[in-house]
Amino acid sequence: MTPEELQSLLASIQDGRTSVAEGLEQLAGWPTLDLAHSRLDLQRELRCGHPEVVFGAGKSPGELQEICCALLERHQRFLATRVDDAGARAVLEAIPEANHQESARALHLDLREDPPAVGRVLVLSAGTSDRAVAEEAALTASYLGASVEHRADVGVAGLHRLLAQADALREARVVVVVAGMEGALPSVVGGLVERPVIAVPTSVGYGASFEGLAALLAMLNSCAAGVTVVNIDNGFGAGYAAAQINRLAESPRHE
Amino acid sequence: MTPEELQSLLASIQDGRTSVAEGLEQLAGWPTLDLAHSRLDLQRELRCGHPEVVFGAGKSPGELQEICCALLERHQRFLATRVDDAGARAVLEAIPEANHQESARALHLDLREDPPAVGRVLVLSAGTSDRAVAEEAALTASYLGASVEHRADVGVAGLHRLLAQADALREARVVVVVAGMEGALPSVVGGLVERPVIAVPTSVGYGASFEGLAALLAMLNSCAAGVTVVNIDNGFGAGYAAAQINRLAESPRHE
Amino acid sequence: MTPEELQSLLASIQDGRTSVAEGLEQLAGWPTLDLAHSRLDLQRELRCGHPEVVFGAGKSPGELQEICCALLERHQRFLATRVDDAGARAVLEAIPEANHQESARALHLDLREDPPAVGRVLVLSAGTSDRAVAEEAALTASYLGASVEHRADVGVAGLHRLLAQADALREARVVVVVAGMEGALPSVVGGLVERPVIAVPTSVGYGASFEGLAALLAMLNSCAAGVTVVNIDNGFGAGYAAAQINRLAESPRHE
Amino acid sequence: MTPEELQSLLASIQDGRTSVAEGLEQLAGWPTLDLAHSRLDLQRELRCGHPEVVFGAGKSPGELQEICCALLERHQRFLATRVDDAGARAVLEAIPEANHQESARALHLDLREDPPAVGRVLVLSAGTSDRAVAEEAALTASYLGASVEHRADVGVAGLHRLLAQADALREARVVVVVAGMEGALPSVVGGLVERPVIAVPTSVGYGASFEGLAALLAMLNSCAAGVTVVNIDNGFGAGYAAAQINRLAESPRHE
Amino acid sequence: MTPEELQSLLASIQDGRTSVAEGLEQLAGWPTLDLAHSRLDLQRELRCGHPEVVFGAGKSPGELQEICCALLERHQRFLATRVDDAGARAVLEAIPEANHQESARALHLDLREDPPAVGRVLVLSAGTSDRAVAEEAALTASYLGASVEHRADVGVAGLHRLLAQADALREARVVVVVAGMEGALPSVVGGLVERPVIAVPTSVGYGASFEGLAALLAMLNSCAAGVTVVNIDNGFGAGYAAAQINRLAESPRHE
Amino acid sequence: MTPEELQSLLASIQDGRTSVAEGLEQLAGWPTLDLAHSRLDLQRELRCGHPEVVFGAGKSPGELQEICCALLERHQRFLATRVDDAGARAVLEAIPEANHQESARALHLDLREDPPAVGRVLVLSAGTSDRAVAEEAALTASYLGASVEHRADVGVAGLHRLLAQADALREARVVVVVAGMEGALPSVVGGLVERPVIAVPTSVGYGASFEGLAALLAMLNSCAAGVTVVNIDNGFGAGYAAAQINRLAESPRHE
Amino acid sequence: MTPEELQSLLASIQDGRTSVAEGLEQLAGWPTLDLAHSRLDLQRELRCGHPEVVFGAGKSPGELQEICCALLERHQRFLATRVDDAGARAVLEAIPEANHQESARALHLDLREDPPAVGRVLVLSAGTSDRAVAEEAALTASYLGASVEHRADVGVAGLHRLLAQADALREARVVVVVAGMEGALPSVVGGLVERPVIAVPTSVGYGASFEGLAALLAMLNSCAAGVTVVNIDNGFGAGYAAAQINRLAESPRHE
Amino acid sequence: MTPEELQSLLASIQDGRTSVAEGLEQLAGWPTLDLAHSRLDLQRELRCGHPEVVFGAGKSPGELQEICCALLERHQRFLATRVDDAGARAVLEAIPEANHQESARALHLDLREDPPAVGRVLVLSAGTSDRAVAEEAALTASYLGASVEHRADVGVAGLHRLLAQADALREARVVVVVAGMEGALPSVVGGLVERPVIAVPTSVGYGASFEGLAALLAMLNSCAAGVTVVNIDNGFGAGYAAAQINRLAESPRHE
Repeated sequence: MTPEELQSLLASIQDGRTSVAEGLEQLAGWPTLDLAHSRLDLQRELRCGHPEVVFGAGKSPGELQEICCALLERHQRFLATRVDDAGARAVLEAIPEANHQESARALHLDLREDPPAVGRVLVLSAGTSDRAVAEEAALTASYLGASVEHRADVGVAGLHRLLAQADALREARVVVVVAGMEGALPSVVGGLVERPVIAVPTSVGYGASFEGLAALLAMLNSCAAGVTVVNIDNGFGAGYAAAQINRLAESPRHE
Repeated sequence: MTPEELQSLLASIQDGRTSVAEGLEQLAGWPTLDLAHSRLDLQRELRCGHPEVVFGAGKSPGELQEICCALLERHQRFLATRVDDAGARAVLEAIPEANHQESARALHLDLREDPPAVGRVLVLSAGTSDRAVAEEAALTASYLGASVEHRADVGVAGLHRLLAQADALREARVVVVVAGMEGALPSVVGGLVERPVIAVPTSVGYGASFEGLAALLAMLNSCAAGVTVVNIDNGFGAGYAAAQINRLAESPRHE
Repeated sequence: MTPEELQSLLASIQDGRTSVAEGLEQLAGWPTLDLAHSRLDLQRELRCGHPEVVFGAGKSPGELQEICCALLERHQRFLATRVDDAGARAVLEAIPEANHQESARALHLDLREDPPAVGRVLVLSAGTSDRAVAEEAALTASYLGASVEHRADVGVAGLHRLLAQADALREARVVVVVAGMEGALPSVVGGLVERPVIAVPTSVGYGASFEGLAALLAMLNSCAAGVTVVNIDNGFGAGYAAAQINRLAESPRHE
Repeated sequence: MTPEELQSLLASIQDGRTSVAEGLEQLAGWPTLDLAHSRLDLQRELRCGHPEVVFGAGKSPGELQEICCALLERHQRFLATRVDDAGARAVLEAIPEANHQESARALHLDLREDPPAVGRVLVLSAGTSDRAVAEEAALTASYLGASVEHRADVGVAGLHRLLAQADALREARVVVVVAGMEGALPSVVGGLVERPVIAVPTSVGYGASFEGLAALLAMLNSCAAGVTVVNIDNGFGAGYAAAQINRLAESPRHE
Repeated sequence: MTPEELQSLLASIQDGRTSVAEGLEQLAGWPTLDLAHSRLDLQRELRCGHPEVVFGAGKSPGELQEICCALLERHQRFLATRVDDAGARAVLEAIPEANHQESARALHLDLREDPPAVGRVLVLSAGTSDRAVAEEAALTASYLGASVEHRADVGVAGLHRLLAQADALREARVVVVVAGMEGALPSVVGGLVERPVIAVPTSVGYGASFEGLAALLAMLNSCAAGVTVVNIDNGFGAGYAAAQINRLAESPRHE
Repeated sequence: MTPEELQSLLASIQDGRTSVAEGLEQLAGWPTLDLAHSRLDLQRELRCGHPEVVFGAGKSPGELQEICCALLERHQRFLATRVDDAGARAVLEAIPEANHQESARALHLDLREDPPAVGRVLVLSAGTSDRAVAEEAALTASYLGASVEHRADVGVAGLHRLLAQADALREARVVVVVAGMEGALPSVVGGLVERPVIAVPTSVGYGASFEGLAALLAMLNSCAAGVTVVNIDNGFGAGYAAAQINRLAESPRHE
Repeated sequence: MTPEELQSLLASIQDGRTSVAEGLEQLAGWPTLDLAHSRLDLQRELRCGHPEVVFGAGKSPGELQEICCALLERHQRFLATRVDDAGARAVLEAIPEANHQESARALHLDLREDPPAVGRVLVLSAGTSDRAVAEEAALTASYLGASVEHRADVGVAGLHRLLAQADALREARVVVVVAGMEGALPSVVGGLVERPVIAVPTSVGYGASFEGLAALLAMLNSCAAGVTVVNIDNGFGAGYAAAQINRLAESPRHE
Repeated sequence: MTPEELQSLLASIQDGRTSVAEGLEQLAGWPTLDLAHSRLDLQRELRCGHPEVVFGAGKSPGELQEICCALLERHQRFLATRVDDAGARAVLEAIPEANHQESARALHLDLREDPPAVGRVLVLSAGTSDRAVAEEAALTASYLGASVEHRADVGVAGLHRLLAQADALREARVVVVVAGMEGALPSVVGGLVERPVIAVPTSVGYGASFEGLAALLAMLNSCAAGVTVVNIDNGFGAGYAAAQINRLAESPRHE
């Protein structure tokens, strides 16, 4: 319930069009309604340009199909991440025109005539095995309206490959850095640019990588200021945060 | 070496003012010089408005004094964090006009005629014991040019106190959320605002908090999208990243 | 051996019906017999209204079938949790009328004319993936005689959905809160109600959730007083404890 | 704002005593005010009979003194836990009649003419070194209105000492079990009584006890149903939960 | 090389039967030969009555078959533990008369006319799921010459079942206690008997049992003196140590 | 209550000297009394030759003094371990003739005319820093009646020092092996002797020794059969178990 | 760009053959080009005699095939580790003459007329289950030009087997020690030789080996100086480092 | 006993100068004597140029003084690491001319006319706080005969500082890289040079560095081949291994 709607309700009570009992009933759900899911969603879409994103892991193919269809119908677009093969088949059966980016384990579709992508999110990934996570980040940021550039295979053991990205680094508003194993890349990147760096540890590695713990701890302890971290393999989270930050730069005066 | 300087050097070689041997010598240190410490620092100050920040932990009082004086002389300002009492005394002896914010364990001074603080960084902290970390974050962001608001004692077990911050949340460009114990606050805040949320776990707690591990893991697993995390007790890192993001919104068209 | 039986034995010795030697023999096993399995079970059923519950994990289909039949024959009812498909088929083959609640991985049957369910146990779960655990808790509490209400999908990142449960929270004697990922829900619930809150961390999550460790630690460190915790995914344990507490409120004067 | 107050406000608007503008203003803070700190506190005291409890760790002597005085003035009583010597001296200076139970590291005072303690909370502790935690639990439950019995030195390696508590176990509504080292006591107690058992692991031990982790894990894995667990050394939390449960049994029909 | 053999060699050199060069050659391998594998094995068999035991995990069916045959040929008996189905089939193909105890995942055969089993090793296991480990312990101790008694399903949550083993406990020279989950049984047993107790944690459990870590830590922290611990699920190690200790009591005067 | 006492009571009831009511009362406490502390202690002393041992950590000097005096008075001897300087002074003040072995942090006294020490417990320690733990083990085993030999500084990185202990190893019935750092010694010793080996990890080390965790894990994973393990730094536990095992060999025919 | 090439470029600018604009363009990529991948590779091959090695894990059969072919074409040889069966088939299809060492999970081929292998790398492995890792180490070192000797089944529980390797130890320049379980072998070896020892923990073990953590920690805490450690199961890394060290000894005067 | 001495003894027996009994006696201690401490030390000194090094931690000032004096007397030099102030005073009292390098917590003295230092060990450290560990490494390698260069403050967040060490990297035979926090430096260095890199994680950091665990894991997972790792803060171990490797290159043909 917006302030305007509240004012209108109270005026309606004052002039007798609404009884006190009716007012009570409408206001009963107010604190809840004021924060209600669909309302927030509408505000979110109006303000940020995107509805909720579907986390596919743990959902049955049928559930996935249903949710994606509902989102598409209501919001003219959807993004679903962590979708396995069976889930993808179910969604594609119902929405044949959906894009299935297998390497990112994601499906998406946008029926709107898109506003042009804005800003620049740079996604850097250290090794070829970090690809799925990096592509999930890139796809998410792109879906949320960011112009995205993805440069892969930029490990710290071959600095020249990183230094060759100097131009891309300069042009980025936000940098998402995806790395497994020792997770050193965000520290090096954070030392090269004065931009927000979002670090994504991946579970790539073996032995004492302990499923990404090594990279996670390294990133949390980065000696480069300005590096923040998301969960292991959480490409979606990094892409989401990057898109949020990237958007901030679009309309600062209007906030 | 800037592109202009390189062009000038090559021209100088071409027209004979500089010999090939001299050119070689000057270019020998180029890749290094191009990235050299003082140079980067100058670029950093010109572009971002701040020199390096001093991490006081592990430095002797004498070292602290020397570094702060050097920074102040060169950059007309300095910020030193994690400064213990002895370190603070040493710095204040040399720079009596420095501000010593004991609760944040920090000293700072800015002799410039400051440009007005821009944007809005909101720092929320869960309990009174998280204060030192939250104040370090607030002070850091403020030193780096952000307009900062700090609201303390906003725990999730008293939701009303959080909901009362609705206005402050709406006005913020970035929110830094500081919490120990179960580290739940960033998830709740992340669900309330469509803004970047930087979560800072603190070592506040006992027993199975394991010096902040519980809060750290909780924050990394936040169900709210857009939450990124820094190291346990790393108020500086959060304030730094917040200021970076906050600044992005100032001049997006010029980037 | 009950006090009455002991008195009877001693009287029998006193009047010569039982020799001292015979008395010795009977008393020899007393400390053990006094605590013997079947006896305790009978007391348990008389006092609490329920026999032992079967933990299905690690039991063969044949073993499960045998145990469930034995319990049903003796106690006219049974509950088996953590039953996989093969186990369920084996039990249903022998007891076709048993209820198989697949989402809770449980089978149960009660042939008694049930006393009406008493009190109110509220089960809240954070996400759709926590469903199996939450339903195990709800089913267990219900089987043990509690009136149970289950509200799902009440995550902290959408506070309005939680606040909408205000009535349910007020009516509950005990609240079971099931959550994975960052495990923040019990803290928020614990701050809203003055009721015992039993928190169940689930293994839902990935990366640094470490199979539920993140949620477990968060719950143990809850800043809300009155929150107690059970093992990861232990819906049964939470439902059992909730039913115990809920029952307490029924007959306090008789205790 | 209670439902009655809301109804009254709306009626006041309806009959013109309150303008729409005034109504808006009053309702503006409603969701927050309805959950505001002091209000909840008052409700808490009226309903549960106790104000907030002070957690002394990390508070300065001056802060402790101030908070205890404020609570005492407003609620005629207070309880402060985890109070070190300096803190205790500061509180006693201002409130000389306060009770300082050093072994429990707690101070408290109740100026009301107390209602008689109700029910029965039994606190069992395994070793002499668990005493401080057990006494914190006992004191907390007692302060919150429970009749409390504390039996110490009941380790599992001397079963006879535990079996000798049979009467105390039978009379208890809730049992708090405090144990360090291998944390086995709650399992044994949980097998002896059909009552809620709240287990408190303590940091007593050395080597592979890892500051209480061994006991914590053991308790979470208890093979006895109905055992719930609180944080390591969290005597307060256990006492609080026990008092809540104990109270439930007092007035079930009125809820 | 025994002292006698060394003396003989030196005498042979002294009287010229062996040249210095030959002596050198023979002595070259001495430190090694003195400890050589076959020699130790022979000593082991003569002194302890058993050859090496085969650890089946990680060995191919063919390797298992070959090793078991070699042992049987040389020592007239063998024991192989951790043998999966394929391995068992391979061994049984070559040695059809071997005993395959599936529940213990072990195969064994003894073609000697056995000396009577001596002493008494008691194996207690807490739950039905600990069976495989307990049976491995029992089989191992039995194979190594101990008289073994195995009592299963003696959990601490049903003390009467444990107390009913009083006679078995009194008759044992060594007690092996196998338990998963909270691992409390060794502490209770250790408090009842003045005998060496060897505790075997098992990986039975879920959630915060962390694959047996909870039980392992509990056992290492046992408050009962005289409890020693082996690796998680290491029934073989416990049975081996128990047989060693049990044997000690047989012939103390001859040592 | 011994069998004789029980028989006497029943006879007394049979012939009327004791009424049924009186018999009931006396028997009421029986299961407990039958296991009562002092009784077990007496049995323990008669059977095993020693009363309880005092664990000094966490006990005040006054408590220590009182307990040691009580034990000495009742049993003519005592052993107290983990006694700090203040505790030792308090005990020595009351019992000036007590032996204070500072390196083992222990005090003891035995006023009996001792039976000769029996068997042979060998204590091997790896480094000079493991001394305190090794001496606690040696002292404990000795106090409990074992003939003890302690050989220090036998690290695996200098095998010759270990091989030089061949005679001592052959003569031992049980070997206690104390080692920190990588904890390799028990594996090597276990490969050299066919005797029970009790391994004691110590917290000696730094960095990734994690306070003895490295040594503990190594010992639990020993490739040598027959090695059992006690808690980190638990010299007392190892000495106790060793004495138990050593005693077994003394009187096997009488058991 | 080598110094000679730089000199040539500058000279070309000076005499007008190259314009300043062209020079700028060529130098633009210099810092990067100077470190560019192919260049480093060529230097690496010229200097060290080997191109990059392929890490097969996480690569598709098609990718593996492509990379191996490219390496073979350019460098006349290749080594691929961690290759599963499908990957091996794909490589062998394209390069039928490649050697597939299944036990080491590796493929390799060298079409050059090899220089004779130099120095001596000794690979010792503790158990038969460590074989795959040890063979990966041996193969890697051999591929990189070292003369390699591999001795398996040298566990610390049978010291004689280790002491029998005295000659091999003396002849080695570097020793790679591969061990799982308690990881004690490197400490013993490090005490026997004055040579660099590279320790490789393996994930062989169960229970508290925690997938190789026990061995890793043990090796990091080795009491023998000169032991360095690589990641769990990282035979490649150990073989690579050993070959580097072994090579050092070949041409020290030329460096 | 060297081969020559053995041959001489046998010859002496053969020609009757030594009786068989005497020969037995001398050979009795042979396997041990052949590996005896003093002998190995002498061999070590002759071959490697250094006696044992003293690890000061856990040793009393008196013990330190005694050991250092003994080493100095026998070997004309000594090195003691991890020496605290009291220990240093004790050593300096007895050996006033000893060098006390406080920043490295070490004392040393070499009375020999030193052979010139050989080769080149480069020690790189990331931050100023890693200094003590890096200096311990440098001092150890230098004491063991290596020519050592130490470059500090070469963090990965300022790549230019690392790239400026290009010459030093090229000249080194072995590189020791010391880093705390995220431990990324060895990966970057390992990518720049084809030399053995020994990585030393330090406990520098806070929060999720977990006393150096983050850096340790990062280094173990380094994506650069040829990196081996020592224990946290183990500067001595790294310096020792580096000196061993550095020495290898000196006299490869003579080995």
